[in-house]
Amino acid sequence: QRRGIPEGIFAAGKTAPQVVALAETALETTGRALITRADDAQIEALESNLLESFPDATLERWSTTVLVRAADAERPSLDATVGIVTAGTVDGPVADEAAAVCRDAGVTIDRVDDVGVAALDRLLDQLERLREADVLIVAAGREGALPTVVAGLVDSPVIGVPVSSGYGHAGDGEAALAGMLQSCTILSVVNVDAGFVAGAQATLFARTLDRART
Amino acid sequence: QRRGIPEGIFAAGKTAPQVVALAETALETTGRALITRADDAQIEALESNLLESFPDATLERWSTTVLVRAADAERPSLDATVGIVTAGTVDGPVADEAAAVCRDAGVTIDRVDDVGVAALDRLLDQLERLREADVLIVAAGREGALPTVVAGLVDSPVIGVPVSSGYGHAGDGEAALAGMLQSCTILSVVNVDAGFVAGAQATLFARTLDRART
Amino acid sequence: QRRGIPEGIFAAGKTAPQVVALAETALETTGRALITRADDAQIEALESNLLESFPDATLERWSTTVLVRAADAERPSLDATVGIVTAGTVDGPVADEAAAVCRDAGVTIDRVDDVGVAALDRLLDQLERLREADVLIVAAGREGALPTVVAGLVDSPVIGVPVSSGYGHAGDGEAALAGMLQSCTILSVVNVDAGFVAGAQATLFARTLDRART
Amino acid sequence: QRRGIPEGIFAAGKTAPQVVALAETALETTGRALITRADDAQIEALESNLLESFPDATLERWSTTVLVRAADAERPSLDATVGIVTAGTVDGPVADEAAAVCRDAGVTIDRVDDVGVAALDRLLDQLERLREADVLIVAAGREGALPTVVAGLVDSPVIGVPVSSGYGHAGDGEAALAGMLQSCTILSVVNVDAGFVAGAQATLFARTLDRART
Amino acid sequence: QRRGIPEGIFAAGKTAPQVVALAETALETTGRALITRADDAQIEALESNLLESFPDATLERWSTTVLVRAADAERPSLDATVGIVTAGTVDGPVADEAAAVCRDAGVTIDRVDDVGVAALDRLLDQLERLREADVLIVAAGREGALPTVVAGLVDSPVIGVPVSSGYGHAGDGEAALAGMLQSCTILSVVNVDAGFVAGAQATLFARTLDRART
Amino acid sequence: QRRGIPEGIFAAGKTAPQVVALAETALETTGRALITRADDAQIEALESNLLESFPDATLERWSTTVLVRAADAERPSLDATVGIVTAGTVDGPVADEAAAVCRDAGVTIDRVDDVGVAALDRLLDQLERLREADVLIVAAGREGALPTVVAGLVDSPVIGVPVSSGYGHAGDGEAALAGMLQSCTILSVVNVDAGFVAGAQATLFARTLDRART
Amino acid sequence: QRRGIPEGIFAAGKTAPQVVALAETALETTGRALITRADDAQIEALESNLLESFPDATLERWSTTVLVRAADAERPSLDATVGIVTAGTVDGPVADEAAAVCRDAGVTIDRVDDVGVAALDRLLDQLERLREADVLIVAAGREGALPTVVAGLVDSPVIGVPVSSGYGHAGDGEAALAGMLQSCTILSVVNVDAGFVAGAQATLFARTLDRART
Amino acid sequence: QRRGIPEGIFAAGKTAPQVVALAETALETTGRALITRADDAQIEALESNLLESFPDATLERWSTTVLVRAADAERPSLDATVGIVTAGTVDGPVADEAAAVCRDAGVTIDRVDDVGVAALDRLLDQLERLREADVLIVAAGREGALPTVVAGLVDSPVIGVPVSSGYGHAGDGEAALAGMLQSCTILSVVNVDAGFVAGAQATLFARTLDRART
Ligand SMILES: Nc1ncnc2c1ncn2[C@@H]1O[C@H](COP(=O)(O)O)[C@@H](O)[C@H]1O
Ligand SMILES: Nc1ncnc2c1ncn2[C@@H]1O[C@H](COP(=O)(O)O)[C@@H](O)[C@H]1O
Ligand SMILES: Nc1ncnc2c1ncn2[C@@H]1O[C@H](COP(=O)(O)O)[C@@H](O)[C@H]1O
Ligand SMILES: Nc1ncnc2c1ncn2[C@@H]1O[C@H](COP(=O)(O)O)[C@@H](O)[C@H]1O
Ligand SMILES: [Mg+2]
Ligand SMILES: [Mg+2]
Ligand SMILES: [Mg+2]
Ligand SMILES: [Mg+2]
Ligand SMILES: [Mg+2]
Ligand SMILES: [Mg+2]
Ligand SMILES: [Mg+2]
Ligand SMILES: [Mg+2]
Repeated sequence: QRRGIPEGIFAAGKTAPQVVALAETALETTGRALITRADDAQIEALESNLLESFPDATLERWSTTVLVRAADAERPSLDATVGIVTAGTVDGPVADEAAAVCRDAGVTIDRVDDVGVAALDRLLDQLERLREADVLIVAAGREGALPTVVAGLVDSPVIGVPVSSGYGHAGDGEAALAGMLQSCTILSVVNVDAGFVAGAQATLFARTLDRART
Repeated sequence: QRRGIPEGIFAAGKTAPQVVALAETALETTGRALITRADDAQIEALESNLLESFPDATLERWSTTVLVRAADAERPSLDATVGIVTAGTVDGPVADEAAAVCRDAGVTIDRVDDVGVAALDRLLDQLERLREADVLIVAAGREGALPTVVAGLVDSPVIGVPVSSGYGHAGDGEAALAGMLQSCTILSVVNVDAGFVAGAQATLFARTLDRART
Repeated sequence: QRRGIPEGIFAAGKTAPQVVALAETALETTGRALITRADDAQIEALESNLLESFPDATLERWSTTVLVRAADAERPSLDATVGIVTAGTVDGPVADEAAAVCRDAGVTIDRVDDVGVAALDRLLDQLERLREADVLIVAAGREGALPTVVAGLVDSPVIGVPVSSGYGHAGDGEAALAGMLQSCTILSVVNVDAGFVAGAQATLFARTLDRART
Repeated sequence: QRRGIPEGIFAAGKTAPQVVALAETALETTGRALITRADDAQIEALESNLLESFPDATLERWSTTVLVRAADAERPSLDATVGIVTAGTVDGPVADEAAAVCRDAGVTIDRVDDVGVAALDRLLDQLERLREADVLIVAAGREGALPTVVAGLVDSPVIGVPVSSGYGHAGDGEAALAGMLQSCTILSVVNVDAGFVAGAQATLFARTLDRART
Repeated sequence: QRRGIPEGIFAAGKTAPQVVALAETALETTGRALITRADDAQIEALESNLLESFPDATLERWSTTVLVRAADAERPSLDATVGIVTAGTVDGPVADEAAAVCRDAGVTIDRVDDVGVAALDRLLDQLERLREADVLIVAAGREGALPTVVAGLVDSPVIGVPVSSGYGHAGDGEAALAGMLQSCTILSVVNVDAGFVAGAQATLFARTLDRART
Repeated sequence: QRRGIPEGIFAAGKTAPQVVALAETALETTGRALITRADDAQIEALESNLLESFPDATLERWSTTVLVRAADAERPSLDATVGIVTAGTVDGPVADEAAAVCRDAGVTIDRVDDVGVAALDRLLDQLERLREADVLIVAAGREGALPTVVAGLVDSPVIGVPVSSGYGHAGDGEAALAGMLQSCTILSVVNVDAGFVAGAQATLFARTLDRART
Repeated sequence: QRRGIPEGIFAAGKTAPQVVALAETALETTGRALITRADDAQIEALESNLLESFPDATLERWSTTVLVRAADAERPSLDATVGIVTAGTVDGPVADEAAAVCRDAGVTIDRVDDVGVAALDRLLDQLERLREADVLIVAAGREGALPTVVAGLVDSPVIGVPVSSGYGHAGDGEAALAGMLQSCTILSVVNVDAGFVAGAQATLFARTLDRART
Repeated sequence: QRRGIPEGIFAAGKTAPQVVALAETALETTGRALITRADDAQIEALESNLLESFPDATLERWSTTVLVRAADAERPSLDATVGIVTAGTVDGPVADEAAAVCRDAGVTIDRVDDVGVAALDRLLDQLERLREADVLIVAAGREGALPTVVAGLVDSPVIGVPVSSGYGHAGDGEAALAGMLQSCTILSVVNVDAGFVAGAQATLFARTLDRART
């Protein structure tokens, strides 16, 4: 694809062999495959079958996201740091999608987990790290207040990612999305659970920054 | 009414004479009148006409809310403090409704304004005052994150009041309401702009507390 | 957590071993574990595995909610009564969540079941009990009218809990939530099925009251 | 129209002369005109202009609804009683629409006002009257609990009419509509503010009943 | 229950033994049991287990609805006819719920199936039968136009029942519900799939009519 | 524009001089101007000011839609007939928008008004005319049943246009839109009140047909 | 059915034997059967069982859609071309429904796949083919931009089909539907995933065109 | 504010003197004032009254947005270019908000107007300019397809701004917002009409880039 972001393979709703086949094609044509929303069976299939056909490929896994790279795939390195921040455990897999896209592009990642607004001191303890990133991706579910609070504490751009946790009224990520769109601090936003998109947007910025720095 | 909360007179959509007439009846039958969502013309009419008929009555005004009490109306005093907190200027009139109900009941009010989450240090500066209240009413619009953050910092119960500010998607207070219902800290909530209800609920708490203390 | 409310372990969507592991950690670090929305298999696992590791712990179960307390966990007792009221059988598990939080805190609970507005005389028969509670939690599904009616009959604060029963238009608890937010009597409200939150909010008030009384 | 219900003239959004012209045509062709949602200017125009052209016609007014009948229009009388019940003042004009349709058809009307569920004793005081009606129309806004409660107390069919009062979340009658559709007692329902439709449906019942009785 | 309508046992989401147990209790205490939304396994359990305990009871089944009556249960007969009309096959089980309630009460039922508006001549062929009913229940899914059209052709009251068929935008019965509420002919309406409620409302009217006739 | 449909000038929310200026530009550059949703003042301004600048132009008006054509504008004539059908008076202006686009293109229009489903015989009386059109545009508000019924009676394609009449739940044309999308007969649909779009779509088909015929 | 479009058999939610039985009846009475939304098991059952009973029938399959035609069924041929266009792989089965209806009617189909707006050059490469069709069906999910873009490039009518792909906010086809209804180019639209309806509407156009051409 | 973005003064709903007073305070305390959503009267008041008090200040206006800077206010210049793109005239004022924030920060702006997807060649003609910007803000209403298409053509990050144009279903910018969230190309998004937020987010990017470049 034009922008150098790999096509993600969205595993949910596909059979394990379908996922492996799509990953094989991606590996062959582009040297890498990025699989998101995979379950354990699909990941096992990738680990056994895919690595059989491509014995020299490397496979990295973050919860439900998998990045496979051919031995000879180019491994870029960009002079830019993306902070990836989560409010709680449930936000992890969504942040992992973002991390995988950044990793593929060679962005430096600074991951800060479990700093949701219910325990503000844990967040404030990480303030210096948050301020050092060039751009921040902040994932939060339920009421999704974390990106709003972070964007009041740092000078760099913040991309909010609403997560589909919660239950009852607006519990499928809609409360978090609405809150981020209404944020009283400056945010741009992606769709619910769209860690992939947030990672890609941060990567596009990182690449511009890398060119400016080098 | 059974619970000792005055019937509010909802002025929006009524003519000034209608509002005055309703207030007169309330004054006559209960010794006080609480008027909410009044505009300047309605308040002027109350000030000139109502005080003409009831020259000894006292009239207090908070932005769009007015409390009139007959000279001989009982003026209770309760041994309990309600903290009333706003995120920004736009939340003022909604908080004023709550304050008027508390004032009528003789609750001690501690008002803390303009401590929205975009400037967290202003909020943290007020932490001791917030921790001293017996119960807190926190009004916030847009993404409505303030009650969530406050409830992570204090031990007393917090009642969230979503305010109908904001624009675009979920901008009529719906984002704030959804966020408070999904809050990752413990809150109970009232409807959008329902400062009156929050004030009444806090008053019911305060009265029970007063009885326990005296 | 600051406010002395245990972190609930939300069992829905977790495996039985995950639930047991989380409960073990909670028991070790805080002396108790509160598990909500557990199914039979998860509860059996708790009963056999958890009590094996902590043979002196006590386990109490209310439908889908489980409270485990270490032998040496402190068992507080608060001088305050929370009335927990349901409209019908389907509201039971939601009320049980509230009860478990109150129980953990040592609040006196007065439980009144099956007094929905379709049979008003059953409700009126319980009026004296309802009036004696310091604060009331009222859970109701479908049209959710019960908290509104109760709040017209008592002087203490009422917290409404909408329950996700019903079907068709707004049948997932949305009708009940909307009705409680629009209530013509004074209520504060929590999210659909959020018995846990209602119990915690009532507990915070009970604790303040206990301090006032003792 | 086939069913003997007059075409209502929906005045909202029309000019006074348009309303008068439509009413004249209705009077000429059917001997009567039923005008709903009229404001004061439109009603004055009807009173002066219409009664000038039809000096022998009679004009009855209920808040925003007007029924004009030619001197020689048939004035039926049906042996059936429709109870028309409101929760509060704001529900009056909606109930008046229903009353006008029933009145035109010659149904006996028993009107019971201001018996909302916030003051249950006022409702219970009217129980005998409510039980004597052949069919009940119950109009209520905000949370719309009244028809549900009434339908638990009587044996005759109840038609619920949600009223567009309230504010904030679902405050345009949507909460009341949702609640009536989810009612835990037996109701059928019409659209928000559709007093006209409720009156017509009750009239159709009443006419069948009249034929059975005579 | 006061109104003589049996409590329906909503089988969906219950185990077969639970359904049987609830039905046994109902049979013992009221002489009959009405089970709705039952699947084949639940119905088989009712047929084998329930009839074992109550060998003289009779069991009638209409698709997913079952009516069991004790040998000595009273079998009333009312002098009134309810027309039950469906647009298509998919509306059958919803209409069956209505039919079972009417059957239990002894109402005469005239069932007219498969006369949806896509084939208007089939509907017009049944016009005489439709006109002879005292009250009509009309169930339709997708766009739900059938009750509107029927109510333009008959003089008796029509109760519309939206059915949760269809797919895509508003495909869960919401389009049909909205259309019936907006109907340009006179209808009252029940919730999506609420055949039970429609049957009960028609029965209440039929009983009044029966008293008038006898 | 590529497809030969004029750019409509949407007058709502513009001043009369703005509308005239836009119409002048359109006349100059394309020889014609099509103005929709114009009020009386805007239309008077067009009639006096525009015709002053372009004295030989012709102006045609249908309720709120105006078509102005320069003296030398080409006046095509297509060998194809579009039936334009309305349910009631309120649908007229929306149908007029469609008619104006068709008229501009030289399509033969067969207009059939006031044949809503509440009076089915008026519709059936027009059946032969409806069956002769090459394509039908059917506009209806409230429950929007008319296009569904028409499409069950004719062999040609039907384009449904939901109209924003009605009130209460889904009363802004949403019920009609949802119903047309769920139609049990074959329809394609345009947005609420989008008579312009329906007219343009019918014109595109008419032009293809004209080419086939000549 | 009047319009010569076969009744589709909607397989989703039916058992394989039910689908086979419905298909048999259709084959017997109309000489063909069109089955949509079938899964592999249902299609295998059709292939083995149905072709056993009707050994001379032909069965064609496109992903989840199956068209069976008796040996002696008429096989019409229409002088008209429908372009069927998809944005991506996920839109294939929806487009296949449309194709099957067109195929049954003898329309010439020009299928253009995988030309979504993310890779505009692939779309522009197919422009000549798109411009040669008499009418276009364009299926797209997620944001559903493709029909809008296509309709800006061709002169023939375009029917948009929103597809229920996507996730998060409005991810069930609602974003695509809303976008097509709001399109800044001329479109008519069918419901989400309603390939069947789009194919039928295009066929009705094609049949009129064929009559004009021959 | 920490991030160096001025507090905007949201003029809608304020009186002209209020707006002037807020602008005066802003000028005094920060050396500049940024007023958004101002009408002609408010802007005239700013031009006459404000410039009277601050005769050396400069005032720049873009449709409804005004930027006033004191004579001695710092006028930064950043080595970064933001492309600001609109689909049509109606999107202008929203884009102007973005432009004013960028202008205040000294960002180079490249504005490209009226390149909506209905006329794709106009967009493709500007491709080189679009590709040269460091970051793009793309504002579009109705179906909001433009940001999606642009993001498929350039390598830099794109921020989509949905505009509240359109009518009927989802016509208040909701269709555009939903489409941008579902975009099949990489976008981040701000709320409907939130040009201010988009401009601020782009400025934060630009400032980081400027630091990297200098
Ligand atoms: N039934 C419940 N209702 C509301 N919150 C809960 C419930 N059960 C657990 N929680 C809280 O939800 C948060 C996330 O829980 P978990 O998903 O287990 O990490 C924790 O703060 C719990 O205290
Ligand atoms: N208040 C009302 N509620 C419901 N329908 C009404 C009401 N008033 C008039 N109608 C009906 O609405 C339709 C359109 O009325 P109009 O807008 O006056 O042409 C007619 O069938 C009237 O009988
Ligand atoms: N994929 C489809 N999309 C739209 N309508 C369909 C589809 N498949 C079948 N139908 C129609 O849906 C109606 C009900 O189908 P069924 O549920 O099989 O009785 C019939 O009129 C079918 O022609
Ligand atoms: N056009 C705008 N879009 C988004 N935020 C704005 C806009 N204009 C002002 N603001 C911000 O909205 C908040 C409230 O503004 P105000 O209502 O004027 O007090 C402040 O933080 C402003 O910076
Ligand atoms: Mg959070
Ligand atoms: Mg806030
Ligand atoms: Mg209830
Ligand atoms: Mg009420
Ligand atoms: Mg139907
Ligand atoms: Mg209609
Ligand atoms: Mg697409
Ligand atoms: Mg656009």
